[in-house]
Amino acid sequence: MNYQKILFEIEEELKDFPNNGKIATYIPELSKVNPDKFGGYLYCVNGTHSSFGDAEERFSIQSISKTFGLSLAMLLKGDELWKRIDVEPSGSSYNSLYQLERENGIPRNPFINSGALVITDILLSEYDHPKDEILKFVRKISGVESIDFDESVAESEKLHGHRNAALAHLMKAFGNIHNDINTILDIYFYQCSLAMSCGELAKTFMLYANEGKILETNEEIMPPIKIQRINALMQTCGFYDEAGEFAFRVGLPGKSGVGGGIVAIHPEKYSAVVWSPKLNEKGNSLLGMEALERLTKKTGFSIF
Amino acid sequence: MNYQKILFEIEEELKDFPNNGKIATYIPELSKVNPDKFGGYLYCVNGTHSSFGDAEERFSIQSISKTFGLSLAMLLKGDELWKRIDVEPSGSSYNSLYQLERENGIPRNPFINSGALVITDILLSEYDHPKDEILKFVRKISGVESIDFDESVAESEKLHGHRNAALAHLMKAFGNIHNDINTILDIYFYQCSLAMSCGELAKTFMLYANEGKILETNEEIMPPIKIQRINALMQTCGFYDEAGEFAFRVGLPGKSGVGGGIVAIHPEKYSAVVWSPKLNEKGNSLLGMEALERLTKKTGFSIF
Amino acid sequence: MNYQKILFEIEEELKDFPNNGKIATYIPELSKVNPDKFGGYLYCVNGTHSSFGDAEERFSIQSISKTFGLSLAMLLKGDELWKRIDVEPSGSSYNSLYQLERENGIPRNPFINSGALVITDILLSEYDHPKDEILKFVRKISGVESIDFDESVAESEKLHGHRNAALAHLMKAFGNIHNDINTILDIYFYQCSLAMSCGELAKTFMLYANEGKILETNEEIMPPIKIQRINALMQTCGFYDEAGEFAFRVGLPGKSGVGGGIVAIHPEKYSAVVWSPKLNEKGNSLLGMEALERLTKKTGFSIF
Amino acid sequence: MNYQKILFEIEEELKDFPNNGKIATYIPELSKVNPDKFGGYLYCVNGTHSSFGDAEERFSIQSISKTFGLSLAMLLKGDELWKRIDVEPSGSSYNSLYQLERENGIPRNPFINSGALVITDILLSEYDHPKDEILKFVRKISGVESIDFDESVAESEKLHGHRNAALAHLMKAFGNIHNDINTILDIYFYQCSLAMSCGELAKTFMLYANEGKILETNEEIMPPIKIQRINALMQTCGFYDEAGEFAFRVGLPGKSGVGGGIVAIHPEKYSAVVWSPKLNEKGNSLLGMEALERLTKKTGFSIF
Repeated sequence: MNYQKILFEIEEELKDFPNNGKIATYIPELSKVNPDKFGGYLYCVNGTHSSFGDAEERFSIQSISKTFGLSLAMLLKGDELWKRIDVEPSGSSYNSLYQLERENGIPRNPFINSGALVITDILLSEYDHPKDEILKFVRKISGVESIDFDESVAESEKLHGHRNAALAHLMKAFGNIHNDINTILDIYFYQCSLAMSCGELAKTFMLYANEGKILETNEEIMPPIKIQRINALMQTCGFYDEAGEFAFRVGLPGKSGVGGGIVAIHPEKYSAVVWSPKLNEKGNSLLGMEALERLTKKTGFSIF
Repeated sequence: MNYQKILFEIEEELKDFPNNGKIATYIPELSKVNPDKFGGYLYCVNGTHSSFGDAEERFSIQSISKTFGLSLAMLLKGDELWKRIDVEPSGSSYNSLYQLERENGIPRNPFINSGALVITDILLSEYDHPKDEILKFVRKISGVESIDFDESVAESEKLHGHRNAALAHLMKAFGNIHNDINTILDIYFYQCSLAMSCGELAKTFMLYANEGKILETNEEIMPPIKIQRINALMQTCGFYDEAGEFAFRVGLPGKSGVGGGIVAIHPEKYSAVVWSPKLNEKGNSLLGMEALERLTKKTGFSIF
Repeated sequence: MNYQKILFEIEEELKDFPNNGKIATYIPELSKVNPDKFGGYLYCVNGTHSSFGDAEERFSIQSISKTFGLSLAMLLKGDELWKRIDVEPSGSSYNSLYQLERENGIPRNPFINSGALVITDILLSEYDHPKDEILKFVRKISGVESIDFDESVAESEKLHGHRNAALAHLMKAFGNIHNDINTILDIYFYQCSLAMSCGELAKTFMLYANEGKILETNEEIMPPIKIQRINALMQTCGFYDEAGEFAFRVGLPGKSGVGGGIVAIHPEKYSAVVWSPKLNEKGNSLLGMEALERLTKKTGFSIF
Repeated sequence: MNYQKILFEIEEELKDFPNNGKIATYIPELSKVNPDKFGGYLYCVNGTHSSFGDAEERFSIQSISKTFGLSLAMLLKGDELWKRIDVEPSGSSYNSLYQLERENGIPRNPFINSGALVITDILLSEYDHPKDEILKFVRKISGVESIDFDESVAESEKLHGHRNAALAHLMKAFGNIHNDINTILDIYFYQCSLAMSCGELAKTFMLYANEGKILETNEEIMPPIKIQRINALMQTCGFYDEAGEFAFRVGLPGKSGVGGGIVAIHPEKYSAVVWSPKLNEKGNSLLGMEALERLTKKTGFSIF
């Protein structure tokens, strides 16, 4: 399969695609991005890679980072993890309080904000320096030592994080948050502020396409069964209330962020990342969804 | 892969599995089944098949039949179908009115009851004799001419179908039901009453594992892209509010019914069906979920 | 207190009141009314009465009629009535399914549609000819034999009554409807179709201002305790999700209808009725609310 | 009317009333109260008073204090107050997040927790020392200088106030909280911790029975129209999701607290207070509801 040719076709086709998406503006730092950025990167399990456009420019990966926190928590904890978080699609928006209240402070899944906050709470209970551990994990898997948090994004988020604080306090009222809420929010916002390029993300997410092993070194970081479960969670819950649409149109597990990045995994085939900052109404990259849909159409196969 | 050996192992292991599930009793006809029935059937794309237990006994397939109605509607209609039904997991129980009311009578997906009723409404608009067409479709794909509705089940459901009537009237109030409600309910209940064995279901669902072609004749019934989309829908929405759990534990697209049957598809590999009438709290076969989880664990691969 | 003077003042003041309300159009029959109609009638326990404008023209009283059904049911039944209907404000719109689903088919109060349908179900169980009994009751209390149903309104409503049918089927699924749904809907729509003038309504509702006795004859129709309870229910639940606003601005128990009528009761003082067909966003007469607010302001006392 | 005789009758009748209520235990301080305390006090506009049992013992008035904060805010602010808080019954429990989320951070009324927090936010914007102003107001109206906060109760609540913090953060996310959340919570918890006896409460709430004037001095503290509105709000919203029940059974405006106190107002007649710490399922004093129902039954008149 000539992935490079396919990527160039997609780039060409989408040049004039009518994009009425809007960049995220809820924090000032995010709104500074150039809305016309567009890049993609595909990393194949045979070691080859292909890319187009702004594939090497770093952007704020935001919720894509939830996969890293989840992976660390699953390495630290056994099945008792799932007593504190469920594995079901929420059918609601990513920061909904309604369901959390009705379900006694147990988040529907680890990819909505409440779930990611419980994950952060777990990391804080287990690690002395959770932020360092998150960085260490991403740097190791990607092999890129320069990956770092974007402090200005993280601090900006703190000033506008009242809804996340509401989620955390509600869960604390139900006994499902154990540590100090401000500390949890600090770690959570730093994790979200990770700045990475399409290429760096593709290398990192190769772990999830390659049964838990780093492709270059063959080192196993996670057992295959846990990787399968994370992929299943990305499939059913990775796109908030648009998870069904992504499965329907693209047919791959994946994870999006409000920075405009989308990661998709074709297990045992490739990891693919697209970045375009303008978001559709559900908060996912409009062009990113479109590009990935064309990718699985042109290659003729999804996981389904 | 020696599927027969694996199936026998699973049957053996689950012999003494503590099963606190309960058979469906909301209609008298369904409660007459022997709760200890247990069978399974796996049909491989290479043409071989394996089975255990009560694999050849017919049972009420109930919601599994929604896949057939959906397939027919997708063959009849293009993308305008998705203006009347969404493709998202509901995050609610299969017959919830709440979401339907809030979302102006547009069902979340074609596998919850409201969605299946819209599908039935479409079949009724397009066909002169929708019940005959459903039968014809199943008989053709399975190659089994004796498959039929169970009239006593269908009539029993009608007497207890007030919640489905409520869904239909609510959608009609929103303009999303076009035909007479009693006629729609009649077709819907007959479709649900289809009596099929694990073996017959596995043969029928081979269509979805085999890119839309009947395995024996190589005749294409549906284009691969539509099959992929149905599989994606089964993955994200096939198990009501337990879709995430099934993806997480089993890792295959599938569809369950309150008769205790579960169908699972491994695209390009196999279709597998398990039947055990006792249901867990979410309304899915308790032993069926367990058996299929073991199947993908023992074979070492899911779609993820 | 010179009520006639006050009524004329209010009529005068509201002549040029900016009224952006809209008449009900969900059934064709209701939309035929002249939107500029405006009248009022106040009937005092001392036997005097005052009025202005279109006080003698009949209009469709719609939900105001729910008070009559409720009164009959309370005469027929003791406290067991309240096992099937609660007495709490709903906090939702009058035809919401959400709460009814969550609360197992028990309506929040007898003034939302679901509650009135249960009341109708009770009348149907108790009476051979419930429609006749409703008419008899209203004619007796008002002393006006010519009061009647408006058949064209009732029949028009039936054609657009799918949401009410949905409510009834949902309650039947929960076991809280005992009789045939179409018969219930027929009675319910006829009750709503009652055509009465402000004057006739004021005479009828004098019963609720006069401790359950017909003013002219001193005949006791209902014991005072039941009257107090109906007044309490009108206060907390008589205006759907605007009950608080009415208590806050007007300070009297009352009941509104989408025909644009509003009845208000000042216990032991008067019954007052205003009619203006244009409705505010919550479905209550915009000018009617305004007129009654001025009435209690000008007279200087509400029940609070 | 011999109120003293009636109070003694009620005390006598309720001696052996089966009381399966439970005292509030969500904060340790509240659970220390003697659950068998029972007292009542009725203060008549003619200056006489009657009482029984533990009428002079102070208890934690909790949510009853919301009336004081509301009164101060209504004195400070005109109608713009009602842009930030609605006047409708919530139909939900007192600390529900669901409705607040759906209605964009505008609380349903000033008596649910979210509404009282907005009121506190307003006091904090207007006063340099809001806690002092609250104390000053209560002491002035009651004429009892020794009334004070119970610091141990207030501090105990802070440790368990995560749900209130969640409400405040959610409203801050919607822009409906302007000041620092911890400061708001501090004031709110101190206000709730006010310790007063039935007698002191009856004297204070005489203001609301006496058209806004202190009975002893005839000094007008609030204009009658504002008093009427507060009474209307107590009627429709003073008992959380049991406001309808209280109107139905007792027929007077009132306000309850989880300390087991209930205040009821008969405008232009009396203020009455009952205290019994055991609460029913909705969080209102079980015996208090019962006693007040008997009071209006025995006196033969409510406001309805």
